[in-house]
Amino acid sequence: MNVTVSQPDCLSGESVISDLSAALLHPVSIHVGSTPTEEMNGAGNLMDFLDEPFPDVGTYEDFHTIDWLREKSRDTDRHRKITSKSKESIWELIKSLLDAWSGWVVMLLIGLLSGTLAGVIDLAVDWMTDLKEGVCLSAFWYSHEQCCWTSNETTFDDRDKCPQWQKWAELMTGHAEGGGAYVLNYFLYVLWALLFSFLAVSLVRVFAPYACGSGIPEIKTILSGFIIRGYLGKWTLLIKTVTLVLAVSSGLSLGKEGPLVHVACCCGNLFCSLFSKYSKNEGKRREVLSAAAAAGVSVAFGAPIGGVLFSLEEVSYYFPLKTLWRSFFAALVAAFTLRSINPFGNSRLVLFYVEYHTPWYMAELVPFILLGVFGGLWGTLFIRANIAWCRRRKTTQLGKYPVLEVIAVTGITAVLAYPNPYTRRSTSELISELFNDCGALESSQLCDYINNPNMSRPVDDIPDRPAGPGVYNALWQLALALVFKIVITIFTFGMKIPSGLFIPSMMAYHHHDWIIFKNWCRPGADCVTPGLYAMVGAAACLGGVTRMTVSLVVIMFELTGGLEYIVPLMAAAVTSKWVADAFGKEGIYESHIQLNGYPYLDVRDEFTHRTLATDVMRPRRNDPTLAVLTQDSTTVEDVETLIKDTDYNGFPVVVSRESERLIGFVQRRDLTLAIKNARQKQDGVVSSSVVYFTEDAPQLPASNPQPLKLRRILNLSPFTVTDHTPMETVVDIFRKLGLRQCLVTRSGRLLGIITKKDVLRHMAQMMNQDPESIMFN
Amino acid sequence: MNVTVSQPDCLSGESVISDLSAALLHPVSIHVGSTPTEEMNGAGNLMDFLDEPFPDVGTYEDFHTIDWLREKSRDTDRHRKITSKSKESIWELIKSLLDAWSGWVVMLLIGLLSGTLAGVIDLAVDWMTDLKEGVCLSAFWYSHEQCCWTSNETTFDDRDKCPQWQKWAELMTGHAEGGGAYVLNYFLYVLWALLFSFLAVSLVRVFAPYACGSGIPEIKTILSGFIIRGYLGKWTLLIKTVTLVLAVSSGLSLGKEGPLVHVACCCGNLFCSLFSKYSKNEGKRREVLSAAAAAGVSVAFGAPIGGVLFSLEEVSYYFPLKTLWRSFFAALVAAFTLRSINPFGNSRLVLFYVEYHTPWYMAELVPFILLGVFGGLWGTLFIRANIAWCRRRKTTQLGKYPVLEVIAVTGITAVLAYPNPYTRRSTSELISELFNDCGALESSQLCDYINNPNMSRPVDDIPDRPAGPGVYNALWQLALALVFKIVITIFTFGMKIPSGLFIPSMMAYHHHDWIIFKNWCRPGADCVTPGLYAMVGAAACLGGVTRMTVSLVVIMFELTGGLEYIVPLMAAAVTSKWVADAFGKEGIYESHIQLNGYPYLDVRDEFTHRTLATDVMRPRRNDPTLAVLTQDSTTVEDVETLIKDTDYNGFPVVVSRESERLIGFVQRRDLTLAIKNARQKQDGVVSSSVVYFTEDAPQLPASNPQPLKLRRILNLSPFTVTDHTPMETVVDIFRKLGLRQCLVTRSGRLLGIITKKDVLRHMAQMMNQDPESIMFN
Repeated sequence: MNVTVSQPDCLSGESVISDLSAALLHPVSIHVGSTPTEEMNGAGNLMDFLDEPFPDVGTYEDFHTIDWLREKSRDTDRHRKITSKSKESIWELIKSLLDAWSGWVVMLLIGLLSGTLAGVIDLAVDWMTDLKEGVCLSAFWYSHEQCCWTSNETTFDDRDKCPQWQKWAELMTGHAEGGGAYVLNYFLYVLWALLFSFLAVSLVRVFAPYACGSGIPEIKTILSGFIIRGYLGKWTLLIKTVTLVLAVSSGLSLGKEGPLVHVACCCGNLFCSLFSKYSKNEGKRREVLSAAAAAGVSVAFGAPIGGVLFSLEEVSYYFPLKTLWRSFFAALVAAFTLRSINPFGNSRLVLFYVEYHTPWYMAELVPFILLGVFGGLWGTLFIRANIAWCRRRKTTQLGKYPVLEVIAVTGITAVLAYPNPYTRRSTSELISELFNDCGALESSQLCDYINNPNMSRPVDDIPDRPAGPGVYNALWQLALALVFKIVITIFTFGMKIPSGLFIPSMMAYHHHDWIIFKNWCRPGADCVTPGLYAMVGAAACLGGVTRMTVSLVVIMFELTGGLEYIVPLMAAAVTSKWVADAFGKEGIYESHIQLNGYPYLDVRDEFTHRTLATDVMRPRRNDPTLAVLTQDSTTVEDVETLIKDTDYNGFPVVVSRESERLIGFVQRRDLTLAIKNARQKQDGVVSSSVVYFTEDAPQLPASNPQPLKLRRILNLSPFTVTDHTPMETVVDIFRKLGLRQCLVTRSGRLLGIITKKDVLRHMAQMMNQDPESIMFN
Repeated sequence: MNVTVSQPDCLSGESVISDLSAALLHPVSIHVGSTPTEEMNGAGNLMDFLDEPFPDVGTYEDFHTIDWLREKSRDTDRHRKITSKSKESIWELIKSLLDAWSGWVVMLLIGLLSGTLAGVIDLAVDWMTDLKEGVCLSAFWYSHEQCCWTSNETTFDDRDKCPQWQKWAELMTGHAEGGGAYVLNYFLYVLWALLFSFLAVSLVRVFAPYACGSGIPEIKTILSGFIIRGYLGKWTLLIKTVTLVLAVSSGLSLGKEGPLVHVACCCGNLFCSLFSKYSKNEGKRREVLSAAAAAGVSVAFGAPIGGVLFSLEEVSYYFPLKTLWRSFFAALVAAFTLRSINPFGNSRLVLFYVEYHTPWYMAELVPFILLGVFGGLWGTLFIRANIAWCRRRKTTQLGKYPVLEVIAVTGITAVLAYPNPYTRRSTSELISELFNDCGALESSQLCDYINNPNMSRPVDDIPDRPAGPGVYNALWQLALALVFKIVITIFTFGMKIPSGLFIPSMMAYHHHDWIIFKNWCRPGADCVTPGLYAMVGAAACLGGVTRMTVSLVVIMFELTGGLEYIVPLMAAAVTSKWVADAFGKEGIYESHIQLNGYPYLDVRDEFTHRTLATDVMRPRRNDPTLAVLTQDSTTVEDVETLIKDTDYNGFPVVVSRESERLIGFVQRRDLTLAIKNARQKQDGVVSSSVVYFTEDAPQLPASNPQPLKLRRILNLSPFTVTDHTPMETVVDIFRKLGLRQCLVTRSGRLLGIITKKDVLRHMAQMMNQDPESIMFN
């Protein structure tokens, strides 16, 4: 089913523009039979028309916004019904207990599945990344490290030279060394990379177009109340998991972290369908998805608390305390499951476990803050460049050839990456090496300090020794790797395959501080921990790109175990955010949301203009009058004409056209369905029947056609503001209560209507952006 | 000034009952001159009446609730004015930049001051606690530990026996040992304790009655929008700091953590008064206070991130993302300041730094969950017992003698505590010892395992050795200490001196698991870390008492540095919360809020009843009609009569009594002030003048008295709901938008009004509690 819905943004820029804007701006007349809402309600079983609401009432169209207040009130109704029933029999009591616990059950299942998937992905990426270089002879499904673990003869020093692991050239020609072998290895490395990325992009294109990209901008939009059917479906889950492995293994400059959040949310959505409590209520479903996002980050970084904070700070819109506790539980289970699978083989939760024991000094705050400044600048630069490139992709011929683009970028990445040992290996391996302190036994080139025999120092006292040629060599290679990663990541993020940018962003830090600070050290003092600089730099860059603060610091120290260094991390994260905010308020996800034109009302934007509700409401001064229904004088035909002639999502109901006193609001969708239903099933309802929204229809003479009573679908508590209400208050109300629309009155008379779309358009206008070109393109 | 306001709850139960309920239920006629609002606006300088609002408009009475929407909108106005002015001159531009940065400046100041105060308190408590036992001869202002540090001859083993430190008996009689010395030491210990607590309770009683208790329930209430003037004033700050030191040093079973949050909030309030942006806007002020609470927890536990989460999860009501970042900054600065003062002498941020290196095993989850169950039960028991005791204190003669009560409890505590070495020392020292693993050099009794000479084990392999008599002895003493602490804490919390319960709660964990699990160990395996059990147990108990989850876990692992043990901590915290919630939804702070009758609308309570706005609004069926004003037919005299005859906080303004169409809402306070002002300063305004709320007053013949135009004080965008709105939606709106009142309409006609008080009373009624006896008593 997910394959059949309208094409998503990252596969074909133009088609989604028209689809989305059509859905948002011109909700054309609805064909109930064809709407993909089978999962939202059972089969269309015959219900008694007068007692039960007919099917589909209270559901939403694809690409529409939900009404949070209505969802919440529907859930309370459901809850009340179950509670009152539970007193009737023991069976009902058990059912009500099951219902009460279903939230925790869903959390448990989400935790288990996303933890397992994350473990499988980790193992598969490990294996496939190494497959590009060689194969394990004893068992081809072992990665390099696993292969050499199992061969007993390996000692620490020659871990890279265990006989079981053979590079392709060695296996095929028998020569491990020499120019020919190098070229052959190089060639096969590029070939594997191309194969992986081709597979990834093809699978996405054919089976699950929504599986592309990082998914976080869309998840933010969905959590804010927008409906994109199939975005979190079963097919998306399956294909995203597979293609994520392929994409990361192909060596592209992308991370698995963002996509893992998407995968976890798909799990959340999947388990929602097990319980009608969640599957039938879009508001409750979003609570589960918020928790799933927390579980996703929890397994992506091994940071359960960071995950909860990420969900709270970055992606969630409605985050009640209950969700906080559930997210916490889901994140815990997910992290625990991942720990049991133990993909990193160290029975630790964290990916890059490091232990520094040297305290840091006050003076070091200066370079940390400089790193923050650098991170902020880098974040600004990255966002600008990436958005410019993505806009170009959308508007030019480039967007038409996604497969070619992926192949080309993979090719370039692989060709340029292989010669440099720091870019050849997987990014997470590299980060792990950079974060680690040089120990006495470390074989890394970065630790190649000259062992000065004249000094009677213990062997592990590294900082005093002059740097050996290996260090200088490594610094050059790292500098090149930095430039390369910066450039290639700009082009990679936003491509048509699963891609995240956490890890690539972390990559981009400033190595050169090291060598500068080496000169500062007083002889004999163990003064600078290079790994700490790497960690702080990573936090600063990630902060500049995503504008996270608290969750970022928590993730970083859960990730690395460096609890002692909260203060440096905080200093760098805050600085980085300040600097980046000075150049533009939006993080990468908000920028992509805006680029794609999703109707997202950011809680962070402050609306400070002096406009009033009357300036924003429709109808405007020269528009035709507002389309309203009267409570007791409209015929079925009038209603049908109104529905045909207009494209509004709903209509206010007033006492009479003269008094204009508001009594309620009726949804277009509910009205269409109700009339259709009545015409089919209720005798005597014809075009000239009068539609009554009043409590009692008057007794009519028998000659008159049967009246149609529709009070049931009338929302008797529509949200109203007066025309003098400042727009900042209106924006606040829309945000906090999650409204779809709001009616405007003056002295009890209905004047107009403000929809979420009107609010967004007005906000864009106030920021001097062209409202039509910015929104929904 | 703070001394003159009405007496607070914890000094005289009854007087505050009448004060508070009077203020809430019958806001009697207001004498403007005597309201303590000098800090809210400058001197009453003469402003042009027609252009500028007169002084005091838009301020609130003591013990009233603020209107969040109005505060927010006033701040936006202010912001707009500054922004538009900033284009006029460079000086205005600088002023606007200063204004923009003032938030960060306030955070910096709060961080610096609360960090400093926390450091000073830590040092003073250390010294005064030791003063109960003895004195340092070389410098009397040294604590035991500092004294022995300075004497060079001390080695690790005889740290307790450095010659510079003398117990009182030794100093006075020359005999360090023997029964006489023991009795003398005992006697002086109790005497010091009594002196300290007497000083504490007297200072509180005389100078700053609000300085008593933990302060967290009141801070929660204040942050939710209630006004208690002087609660966060300068005097409270000073007296609370001094008495906190005295109370903790006296050996009472209370902690300094809750009061430190109060101290930090006082700092926040103090610095608010420096900037009119914060001092003149109650909404903005509360943003600062939220951040200050985070800084308070940050220094109380050395846990900056935990502090931010505590503020978010536990105390704050309105917590926008901007406040998250600022809190983060304030917590960072505070922690950093404390680290610079370095009161624990280990240059670590954390109080109980521990390092375990043994991983935990899956099977251990069972005892962890059991600890969680125990913690939940203990939490329930504690809350019930403590609330019962506090209610008894309020309703019986007991409440009349607070000084005597404190003296008595201190005496009992000191007498019972001295003989047991685990209760004699300060609670934080004890926790520190319990959390720590037994090392080879540890001199604690708990580590007195028999060194079996037959085994060729290294000396630090402790777990295999059988427990020595010291261990059994210690376990008995600990068990006694546990029972004693449990009982005494129930009576201590809520007394009339500064008291927190974080640390005492942590105390109450289950030591006995240790000995049980010793038998499980496979020989040779280092299987159980006793300190870990202590840590998990502490988390479980604290979770049961306060119902925190995420923030608790973060605080615990920041506190102890035990990053590896997130999963056990999470498991225990979640279990503890579940178990405790099964017996009652409210944590200790909510219980105290309810006990004291503060108008606090808890975000966690779910309202699931099927009532409508029409069931809750006033006037009820048999009440007199709603007191309204008309827009153009009420005279000044009519208004004055209405104000005199009713006690409502405000009046709706309608078009006419016949049409009942609503045009706005006017605050009683503003109305009183406006009429008073007009009578004084505006010529021709007499009792028979007509009050106009319309845009233009009609041209009247010269014979008629001058009309009084009051549109300026009319709120043209009052919040309205229809009579059919479900109460759950109304409750939601009150919570999320922070309303004071909401008008109820049907078809554009005004029907009634719902105030926050009505909502709270209705909620109590629905929970089968007597609304009048529960609220505001």
